[in-house]
Amino acid sequence: MKKNNTFSEIRVALAEAENILILPHVKADGDAVGSASALTQILRKDGKNVYAWAAEEPLPSLAVLAHEAYVTEIPEGFTPDLLISVDCADIDRCIDRVQFFPDVKILNLDHHVTNTRFGDLVYVIGNLSSTGQLIYQLFDSLGYKINKKAARSILGAILLDTNRFYYSSTGTRTLEIAAEIIERGVNMAELCEELFGNNPKEKMRLLAMAIERAEYFAEGRGVFCYLPQEVQDQAGTDNTDDIVEALRDIQGVELALLLYDYKGTLRASMRSFGSLDVGKIALKFGGGGHRNAAGITFEKTNVDKVSRELLSTLEALFVRKN
Amino acid sequence: MKKNNTFSEIRVALAEAENILILPHVKADGDAVGSASALTQILRKDGKNVYAWAAEEPLPSLAVLAHEAYVTEIPEGFTPDLLISVDCADIDRCIDRVQFFPDVKILNLDHHVTNTRFGDLVYVIGNLSSTGQLIYQLFDSLGYKINKKAARSILGAILLDTNRFYYSSTGTRTLEIAAEIIERGVNMAELCEELFGNNPKEKMRLLAMAIERAEYFAEGRGVFCYLPQEVQDQAGTDNTDDIVEALRDIQGVELALLLYDYKGTLRASMRSFGSLDVGKIALKFGGGGHRNAAGITFEKTNVDKVSRELLSTLEALFVRKN
Repeated sequence: MKKNNTFSEIRVALAEAENILILPHVKADGDAVGSASALTQILRKDGKNVYAWAAEEPLPSLAVLAHEAYVTEIPEGFTPDLLISVDCADIDRCIDRVQFFPDVKILNLDHHVTNTRFGDLVYVIGNLSSTGQLIYQLFDSLGYKINKKAARSILGAILLDTNRFYYSSTGTRTLEIAAEIIERGVNMAELCEELFGNNPKEKMRLLAMAIERAEYFAEGRGVFCYLPQEVQDQAGTDNTDDIVEALRDIQGVELALLLYDYKGTLRASMRSFGSLDVGKIALKFGGGGHRNAAGITFEKTNVDKVSRELLSTLEALFVRKN
Repeated sequence: MKKNNTFSEIRVALAEAENILILPHVKADGDAVGSASALTQILRKDGKNVYAWAAEEPLPSLAVLAHEAYVTEIPEGFTPDLLISVDCADIDRCIDRVQFFPDVKILNLDHHVTNTRFGDLVYVIGNLSSTGQLIYQLFDSLGYKINKKAARSILGAILLDTNRFYYSSTGTRTLEIAAEIIERGVNMAELCEELFGNNPKEKMRLLAMAIERAEYFAEGRGVFCYLPQEVQDQAGTDNTDDIVEALRDIQGVELALLLYDYKGTLRASMRSFGSLDVGKIALKFGGGGHRNAAGITFEKTNVDKVSRELLSTLEALFVRKN
């Protein structure tokens, strides 16, 4: 496995580049949008030509973190001499764009423990709260200026990837960085209001339906909910964000499984606490993720069969743990 | 208005006391339970006889922050020579216990801007995130040792009173203190799980019902919900915690009003963003609170009349703001 490059190697690669293309992962989440936008601004301040090239428009809820140079199409004739992948654990997560520039160097910046360390230059710290934190630390150490707007995007990335400092990836330095960012004038309350105080009515209705449909297993230590297309239609949205977390946050629950129809596929989203490893379960079924947060997409849609198999596997997880 | 006492005046008063009684406010919230428990431990480490005397048992959800000397009855014969009120904006909030010791000095520690500065010694910083933060700063400055368990209670107080750093009272120092507390080994993820990942099923069901019963006013900028006793019975709980916050966090909503039956009374709970001052509205109706969080208890239970009056007053608030 490739070791992290040194600060001076990264400094040289950045100094040599004129035109830089930043690549957040497909289906960019808050960390990817915020990190890519922040990095775009940091490097533009340094005099580079920079775009963040995303696979799709940022989700409406994340638009507040996106810089104007966060685009889905790069200007005609823009030829990068450096690619920076952001928050991509695997090159597959940005290959849709990398493929157009097979000869251009890649700098891989990420915080996933599972990062495959692809690319010509690598700077990955697993278990860090977010790629946002990694970019803040790295570019601060390299002596770059991180202006207020970039700092705001980084704070957003941190807030979303830690669920407002809830997750164990939140370290001392995470909180210190948030303090430093506030210190330079970023209004965290306003940012929280934009990121967390903006739940669409339809999404809240779907959450209410999920709570009412929830079923418990493993003596209440597990909770399961299936949201078929009809229920989503009734709520008026297919936005299932945060629902599985809300289910996990029910008293006594250590593991939550949300199953939902999504554009002809069936998806499973799992969240757990502590040592209950849903990442392993996801791997077993062809999905992926982390120990406490993982997902699977099933092509077939035999819901009964899938849910039976998943539930019995999850039941077994509790038994093994006892 | 009484100014804050100096550090040396407070140091002398503490040094002179042998038996200290700490008084969290009635219906103690997370800040009151956490602050009182932390302070109990800090002063016990300093060799004092200390109890935190609460008006009632801590809520089950807050028990994790309570020290064993957080009691509802003090040992027979315990005679304090110093009372410390904690998180009490007004002496009414602890008079039920102060009345037994009319001649004992009171040290008033609080973070409410509306604190009446009662007591013989006062140390109040309005707009600080929490009384927990105030106690941490004060006792750290005074040179007291804050052990890990006390620090954990303080972190809980901060997390609950800022809604995990959501509210604008979260300052640079708030985050730095959280970082310092983590640094000394307190597991924040575990604490968050205990404080935020432990919602009773019945409470979640009541939340789901509230979402479904929500009505909008002022062109969607306001949301209103009434939870009568029957609905609470159906959900199986009268625990309305966090419901009004969830309503305020709906897209487009700047102000939420939750009305609910509570032991024969009718209560109004209001939350708002920014300059919409629900505290003033509460005062007008005989209630109290802060600019963005306030409440009223109505003795009469003519719900239609009360909700009509409240809603028209709140509608007017939007008009004035435009």
